[in-house]
Amino acid sequence: MTPQFEVVAECPHTRARAGVLQTPHGSVETPVFMPVGTQATVKALTPRQLADELDARVLLANTYHLWLRPGADTIEAGGGLHRFMGWPRSLLTDSGGYQVFSLAGLRTITEEGVAFRSHLDGSSRFLSPESAVDIQRALGSDVMMVLDDCTPYPASERQARDSMELTIRWAGRSFDHWRIAGVDSRAQLFPIVQGATHVSLRRECARRLVELDAPGYAIGGLSVGEPRPLSFEMTAACEEHLPRDKPRYAMGVGMPHELGEYIALGIDMMDCVLPSRNARNGCLFTGSGKIMIKNAVHTSDHGPVDPACHCYVCRNFSRAYLRHLFLAKEMLFSTLATLHNLTLYLDRVRQMREAIISGCLPEYLRRVAAEIG
Amino acid sequence: MTPQFEVVAECPHTRARAGVLQTPHGSVETPVFMPVGTQATVKALTPRQLADELDARVLLANTYHLWLRPGADTIEAGGGLHRFMGWPRSLLTDSGGYQVFSLAGLRTITEEGVAFRSHLDGSSRFLSPESAVDIQRALGSDVMMVLDDCTPYPASERQARDSMELTIRWAGRSFDHWRIAGVDSRAQLFPIVQGATHVSLRRECARRLVELDAPGYAIGGLSVGEPRPLSFEMTAACEEHLPRDKPRYAMGVGMPHELGEYIALGIDMMDCVLPSRNARNGCLFTGSGKIMIKNAVHTSDHGPVDPACHCYVCRNFSRAYLRHLFLAKEMLFSTLATLHNLTLYLDRVRQMREAIISGCLPEYLRRVAAEIG
Repeated sequence: MTPQFEVVAECPHTRARAGVLQTPHGSVETPVFMPVGTQATVKALTPRQLADELDARVLLANTYHLWLRPGADTIEAGGGLHRFMGWPRSLLTDSGGYQVFSLAGLRTITEEGVAFRSHLDGSSRFLSPESAVDIQRALGSDVMMVLDDCTPYPASERQARDSMELTIRWAGRSFDHWRIAGVDSRAQLFPIVQGATHVSLRRECARRLVELDAPGYAIGGLSVGEPRPLSFEMTAACEEHLPRDKPRYAMGVGMPHELGEYIALGIDMMDCVLPSRNARNGCLFTGSGKIMIKNAVHTSDHGPVDPACHCYVCRNFSRAYLRHLFLAKEMLFSTLATLHNLTLYLDRVRQMREAIISGCLPEYLRRVAAEIG
Repeated sequence: MTPQFEVVAECPHTRARAGVLQTPHGSVETPVFMPVGTQATVKALTPRQLADELDARVLLANTYHLWLRPGADTIEAGGGLHRFMGWPRSLLTDSGGYQVFSLAGLRTITEEGVAFRSHLDGSSRFLSPESAVDIQRALGSDVMMVLDDCTPYPASERQARDSMELTIRWAGRSFDHWRIAGVDSRAQLFPIVQGATHVSLRRECARRLVELDAPGYAIGGLSVGEPRPLSFEMTAACEEHLPRDKPRYAMGVGMPHELGEYIALGIDMMDCVLPSRNARNGCLFTGSGKIMIKNAVHTSDHGPVDPACHCYVCRNFSRAYLRHLFLAKEMLFSTLATLHNLTLYLDRVRQMREAIISGCLPEYLRRVAAEIG
């Protein structure tokens, strides 16, 4: 049987590695950046564009949003999330925990789980570690996440420990439930390392979660407001204690220039709304920094967004045209901007993988950093 | 030299004909339905989708909108409208007259032209028959329209005659200007038959415009509020007096079930925002009538919008998924809905062309009418 994850090359200079993740819906070369498809769609893109123009291999969908609308039962009855959204490749789902914990004032956490009111219709809902697994199984996710307690930033050590202990107990229940229910597919379940910005807690959390012998590990609670050096320090603290033969997923990161830093710390999987959300707001990433397309300097600029980019957008459209679409509030702007930004993210991570394999990741990262300026 | 328009088959039962229109950007088989790309984009679709998934051969763009934003000079400096919007196939532009005349209270018509204030920034603008041609030449349009006076509905015979006479004088000036300026390309200019809902005026207008020996003729002032039988009567009245060897373009029509009626009356070209605008509002056309996707009946309908449709949307997505996207206000809904509705329009018109060539248009139209119910 093909292993679910295999490291195919290790960087001799950093903790980075190149690998291959196998899921029931294909293989995913790592490191990988996963476009976010919250409501069963990467905003403004068709699955065909994601496959043919970006060659995305794995998308992230949000359990919370899909559970509330259209409902896991509707999606299950339609043949599962892949079929529902017309995406035949791999899907990773979060547990819904992060969204629920963002509903400050509308939720109550107990040992059992979290009670909250839907942001859509105010209805009462309850999410437990067990039901989070069940919902993701109903969706047919390839890579599922356990329900965790997302510690806010800043958090005292006491507060962070209590939160972490709950996360660890919930992870245990999630794995018990997952294994008792019968692992009837090659789907995977990842626990999530928490511990806020306390190195000792991060290390302890990682060590204790490794006892679950999970197929992979996520690192949560990054990019929640802390200074970036702390994010990297926490990532490194977790990474030391995670098994080298399992994939590591840094949730919700990052900026273009941060991708390489996480990869150099041994991260295999990342996701972030930034490239797509910024795109819709008119912020386009290029090899030499970001541009705001609404700026007047682009009015008569008939060159591409990024001359070094080979995406559909840069091959066919000018900054002047994109600016026009943005000012005219045309939906096509969002489509083209998202295509471009995601291409930049995915291409850059693919180039880093090649650099890992050829042993020149540090040189690659220095060159990219110099271009960004 | 290839003629700019050639009739390749005539229906033995109706006035319908199949033809080929040659433009500097390719040949267009007629009858043809032209998707509307007002602001240099068919809303929510990429040019690649229009070419690869719809096989559209000609789009319509709006001179008024593009003149005001981003400006004809910007588009000309970028290599013309085709290059600006990444559309290598044919483009037809209206003259801007219809939009200007819709600015009730903001415009003043004189013999010379029409003065108005921009709906974008309130700036004073002036459009004359000559400048309308110049703007469209700057855009690089393949098929241009003269500036006409759009008679409102209802209009008395006196009012309609005055308006028509102005339209005819303006058409004369447009052609003088176009020919004096030098016809340096194979671009075409069409005059527009007006005359409101008065058969005698429609006939007279058509006869007098034919004296211009234009490469094609448009029929304007349809679908402006009049009962549909009157629209068809006016079309027939114009058609009798238009040369059979020139293309006829019915502006701004129509509903799916009306396409065949116009074609049977000898119309070769049509455009309408209906398929794309209705799409964005959740109204999808099918072979058995229209559906409103938000209706609860589609909640768990995992079948396609139209089982007989072979478009990308019907092959890959369910009504349940489309309803979810619509309720979640996802942009992808507009893209998929527009793709489907335009496919239905373009496919239907292509099927009518085949029916004309094989001599069975009436049977085809009866069958389609029966399906719609």
